[in-house]
Amino acid sequence: MTHPRILIQFDSDSHASVFDSVVALDSGVDHLLQYSNIEPTNVRSLVHGAMFTRGPKELQNTAIFIGGSNAALGDSIGEEIKQTFFGPVRVSVMVDGNGANTTAAAAVLCAARHVDLAATKTIVFGGTGPVGMRVARLLVRQGSQVMLTSRDALRAEAACQSIRHRIGSQADGRLSAIGLAKADDLRDALAQATVVFSCGAAGATLITADELTVATQAKVAIDLNAVPPAGIEGVGVMDKAVQRGDRFDYGAIGVGGLKMKIHRESIQSLFTRNDLFLDAEEIFSVGEKIEKFRTA
Amino acid sequence: MTHPRILIQFDSDSHASVFDSVVALDSGVDHLLQYSNIEPTNVRSLVHGAMFTRGPKELQNTAIFIGGSNAALGDSIGEEIKQTFFGPVRVSVMVDGNGANTTAAAAVLCAARHVDLAATKTIVFGGTGPVGMRVARLLVRQGSQVMLTSRDALRAEAACQSIRHRIGSQADGRLSAIGLAKADDLRDALAQATVVFSCGAAGATLITADELTVATQAKVAIDLNAVPPAGIEGVGVMDKAVQRGDRFDYGAIGVGGLKMKIHRESIQSLFTRNDLFLDAEEIFSVGEKIEKFRTA
Amino acid sequence: MTHPRILIQFDSDSHASVFDSVVALDSGVDHLLQYSNIEPTNVRSLVHGAMFTRGPKELQNTAIFIGGSNAALGDSIGEEIKQTFFGPVRVSVMVDGNGANTTAAAAVLCAARHVDLAATKTIVFGGTGPVGMRVARLLVRQGSQVMLTSRDALRAEAACQSIRHRIGSQADGRLSAIGLAKADDLRDALAQATVVFSCGAAGATLITADELTVATQAKVAIDLNAVPPAGIEGVGVMDKAVQRGDRFDYGAIGVGGLKMKIHRESIQSLFTRNDLFLDAEEIFSVGEKIEKFRTA
Repeated sequence: MTHPRILIQFDSDSHASVFDSVVALDSGVDHLLQYSNIEPTNVRSLVHGAMFTRGPKELQNTAIFIGGSNAALGDSIGEEIKQTFFGPVRVSVMVDGNGANTTAAAAVLCAARHVDLAATKTIVFGGTGPVGMRVARLLVRQGSQVMLTSRDALRAEAACQSIRHRIGSQADGRLSAIGLAKADDLRDALAQATVVFSCGAAGATLITADELTVATQAKVAIDLNAVPPAGIEGVGVMDKAVQRGDRFDYGAIGVGGLKMKIHRESIQSLFTRNDLFLDAEEIFSVGEKIEKFRTA
Repeated sequence: MTHPRILIQFDSDSHASVFDSVVALDSGVDHLLQYSNIEPTNVRSLVHGAMFTRGPKELQNTAIFIGGSNAALGDSIGEEIKQTFFGPVRVSVMVDGNGANTTAAAAVLCAARHVDLAATKTIVFGGTGPVGMRVARLLVRQGSQVMLTSRDALRAEAACQSIRHRIGSQADGRLSAIGLAKADDLRDALAQATVVFSCGAAGATLITADELTVATQAKVAIDLNAVPPAGIEGVGVMDKAVQRGDRFDYGAIGVGGLKMKIHRESIQSLFTRNDLFLDAEEIFSVGEKIEKFRTA
Repeated sequence: MTHPRILIQFDSDSHASVFDSVVALDSGVDHLLQYSNIEPTNVRSLVHGAMFTRGPKELQNTAIFIGGSNAALGDSIGEEIKQTFFGPVRVSVMVDGNGANTTAAAAVLCAARHVDLAATKTIVFGGTGPVGMRVARLLVRQGSQVMLTSRDALRAEAACQSIRHRIGSQADGRLSAIGLAKADDLRDALAQATVVFSCGAAGATLITADELTVATQAKVAIDLNAVPPAGIEGVGVMDKAVQRGDRFDYGAIGVGGLKMKIHRESIQSLFTRNDLFLDAEEIFSVGEKIEKFRTA
């Protein structure tokens, strides 16, 4: 009897992501089981199949990856899987719906190359989306003063509440919602920020080159939009620590190399134990180790 | 050109069983092709793909596993596959919808560790379900006097007819249907049984501790219900030849180890020839060999 | 980080072809990702996953195979994939919906064993179907004078127009549509043909033994119908260069060996570069190399 490393790919879309599959195989997985159309309501018996097929010592060679374009649905599937496990009868899980966790971790780590996040004010544009909320959450965890923005102040506040609900007192006094209905709001926020993140959906420029001139304190600008137009006008998609004045700029592809490494290392780490649950914070920790190694 | 061992997993559910997939890979299959939503009406052209891609000598490296939660549908798919083959152009097939064949084989073999089945009266509770019918069928094959029970006498008789239809004269005088409408029926039957099997659906206790005291002849009690409440009150799900008075008790997990071994050995045997068709009886034979090796 | 050879199987049917999967694995693919229900409208993001997961040097270890019973739909999926690639960021692709390209290539190459196609008149029965149109197209490419026939003259002409549209001036004066409404049309055409191809759908005899006697010039007859009745009465499904008078006959299985070799070699060639697009002509070229090696 052999115990090859098996990754079970649970994807909420009608076709499981090729991207996630190739990264998994490049991470050394022996066999990939692709599942599409996964929802919290149909995942339970599949998880039982992961739990009850191998003995305690070999369970670490089975793991679950949760993907799909809907990050919130991925989170719900992850919660359902947690509920399905009992005691030590479990396998390791990585949650990365829409690539939001690996992307957010990589973006925050790129910023951390240039500034001490715990001593900075950061602003997150498109902060109500799946990546933006995770970027804000990870920044708060790092001790940053985070301004989460949205055109709609109510949505910004709801996103902040969701993060506070998740991480508790760590968010106290560190996370504020900012609506951008008026141009003055935007300018006031930008003027204070040491790091500027743009995490909005494709198709919209969130900060014009003109507006960016207000951000005189900015040491880092990171635009995670991979498709033109740029989220931050003037930041290139290929930028990777491109210096413009006092500021280091990163584009989506510039962040992408680290994101891919984090994704692969996270997959590999799944097979070291049978009880890991890799959400944004744990995936960020994987990235921190990569960064230490890089600078060592 | 290589000829890796390919297992084609035909599953009637909307997501192919993770359980069956992991067991297959642990059995040394090189590549697993998972198919879900398989029915007798859509399997034919897929089977052609198994038949016509490799030469006669290499056909034994392709095999088919039929699974899914509906055991009867699995059987129908198996029949359709048999019809699709012609002459020596075929691949080996294992039928194990709902795990019913491997479970039934393991349960009967556990009983055979303690008694001579050909010399005993056995009673099968939940005898109309997929596992119960297979347990009864295998017991008759072993020469036992089998009482197949159900709350509904007509359903019990229909299940017996189905078994008789399948195995022919071997069932003559060895298989009787018993309805359990009245408490007396249950007590009369239990009083005669040397082996008691409980194969009912999850959620119901079929025999209370009090009722079980009537079974004074019982040398073995096997409860295949893995989810509380127990099918036989007082038998634990982890029991594996736990002695209680003159009786050896087995629970679902206690039987599970042998079931898993039978499943894996059956998968491995598929790749030794290209013309096997492993149904309950053949899977039982695989189990017999494992048991001989165990006691040798 | 490893870079195993990954083949992504895009299939337009509801269950991806087992045939294509087994051939892929026998061609040495390390991991196969099967996708069913693929259409031009849902393939784009999956292709992005193939493009953006590996660096330029490793992209040649990812490739795409397009299959499914609808050859025209396979072609459309191929076109959509071409549009999705940009610049050097692409992976190699093989198009073989309904096996039409590999079958047509093998059939034309079997004929080329016996005659100089550039110096012959060929007739294609069932010329409006997926295989027939590709056979005609490849014959024109080889310089043959091709008569594409159908019972319906308008459909024959439409098929010719489609081929002309595709291959341009190379078709000038070499491709004619022939309707077979009258028995005389059939006889006139047959009387001129050096090679006779039958590429019709299963279930119909396109040329009776009596009609075939008119084809006094025929040096080769190839019937690609694998299911009785024969498309060309008197040609056996197993025929492989069976000589009958001056004529060499081939049946579907007789052509099948070469078809399989072409299929496997084509898959293998996908992994030698990242920018191949194997359509009928390129697959024919793969076959030409196999034939040269065979006769060398």
